[in-house]
Amino acid sequence: MPWKAIGIFDSGVGGLTVLKEIIKALPQEDTIYFGDTARFPYGTKSPETIIRYSLEIASFLVKRDIKLLVVACNTASAVSLEALTKKLSIPVVGVIEPGARRAVSTTRSRKVGVIGTEGTIRSSAYTKAIKRLNPDVEVITQACPLFVPLVEEGWIDNEVARLASRTYLTGLREEKADTLVLGCTHYPLLKEIIAEVMGTGVRLVDSAEETASTVADILRSGGMLRPSSEKGNHHYFVTDVPAGFIRIGKRLMGGELGDVHQVSVEEPVMNEEMADDGS
Amino acid sequence: MPWKAIGIFDSGVGGLTVLKEIIKALPQEDTIYFGDTARFPYGTKSPETIIRYSLEIASFLVKRDIKLLVVACNTASAVSLEALTKKLSIPVVGVIEPGARRAVSTTRSRKVGVIGTEGTIRSSAYTKAIKRLNPDVEVITQACPLFVPLVEEGWIDNEVARLASRTYLTGLREEKADTLVLGCTHYPLLKEIIAEVMGTGVRLVDSAEETASTVADILRSGGMLRPSSEKGNHHYFVTDVPAGFIRIGKRLMGGELGDVHQVSVEEPVMNEEMADDGS
Repeated sequence: MPWKAIGIFDSGVGGLTVLKEIIKALPQEDTIYFGDTARFPYGTKSPETIIRYSLEIASFLVKRDIKLLVVACNTASAVSLEALTKKLSIPVVGVIEPGARRAVSTTRSRKVGVIGTEGTIRSSAYTKAIKRLNPDVEVITQACPLFVPLVEEGWIDNEVARLASRTYLTGLREEKADTLVLGCTHYPLLKEIIAEVMGTGVRLVDSAEETASTVADILRSGGMLRPSSEKGNHHYFVTDVPAGFIRIGKRLMGGELGDVHQVSVEEPVMNEEMADDGS
Repeated sequence: MPWKAIGIFDSGVGGLTVLKEIIKALPQEDTIYFGDTARFPYGTKSPETIIRYSLEIASFLVKRDIKLLVVACNTASAVSLEALTKKLSIPVVGVIEPGARRAVSTTRSRKVGVIGTEGTIRSSAYTKAIKRLNPDVEVITQACPLFVPLVEEGWIDNEVARLASRTYLTGLREEKADTLVLGCTHYPLLKEIIAEVMGTGVRLVDSAEETASTVADILRSGGMLRPSSEKGNHHYFVTDVPAGFIRIGKRLMGGELGDVHQVSVEEPVMNEEMADDGS
């Protein structure tokens, strides 16, 4: 069992920040990353569809003999975690719960800010998770739709990023949250600018870091860790042409990715019978 | 024939700026807009797939009895125009040719700038179209990946948009292009800021406007215009849940959209046989 790989999936490239933290925490482990780039983004799709996609990907990874599955996608974590846990006999870890737990244990003022994509914020997944852990914690949310494109453009320390951060975060600052959850896998790359705008009194919770540390805890307590003298191998699968994934992936990982393999996906067919002709 | 509608399709919501110009130029015409939001974006997909999607959508629209088809998507215009023209017996208009033609007739310095998404710029579709019309015109291109998210966020006249524009456009200014093609359907909404950054000596070519005027020319010369005393009706079809389309669509159209109907699309199925296991 210790020799099996850790499986990680995301709707696209963003989950690589979680993979990066897992490799940092557990360099001895093999990993298999699956980015469903052809069907990205999940945020606009129905729960039924997201659950089906998640189960398909999980089955692909389980066939490659993983010992633990990380759902490194906020949308899929919010929607599919229960279905995956029911279906699989290996541990399944999402990105929301670890971030929420750390936020609750960190805050002193009991005011927690959460930033994420529009889809994540609209789902209230972090708010619900935090409230489940401690109903007395007040949660203030803010969608920051420009942060993902800023990171993908590599604009993480210029004036545009600084000004966008100020525009998004001023409200959270004024509300005096003392803890801020980076509720999107892309956001850790903007950590420095976000910290600068929020000021020294505010603690940032990096969901990617917290998720990696949860993975380490589970493997350790289950006796599933490889010896720390080992060095892990890392494989990547994507569902669309790998070029874009590799280009942005290098930015997120801060270095080369190694081999990225494209997995074929059957294309959708328009079902015209079901069209509403609008007349 | 005059009483039939104009069909317009795009991979998503961006083509609405083209629709808006068509309605402005030809308020008497009925229109049917198709946004393939479930399979958006096209930019990362293979030409074969984009052609197949385009033919499927064209067949959907032709069944609804359109008299002319507008491909209001830069990627699909670059890739599928030939296949669509061959297949259909009605006129087909893309967004690239009209913008390229106007740029060539406008420039005095024979230096034309083109801005667009990374996919459009990488495809060189505008450069090729301009060079076909006049090989002596020098084309300078610049991808502006942040412009679409800025428009979708509604940040079209704030400091973030101004600073991003300055960052992207300074090079084009220094190269002394006297004409700038807005080679993306979202960009007309940033026209004021782009004009401000480029300065008064530079003429902006709005592909949406030029496409609408090409459509008007074709219908007029073919005797296919409805009487100008009429008032057209406008129908919308999308392939994903309409909420996001409507929210951003209002921004692009500058007003309400009317009814938006979701058309069902058969979902893709993972083909595991074809997976490369990477070992």
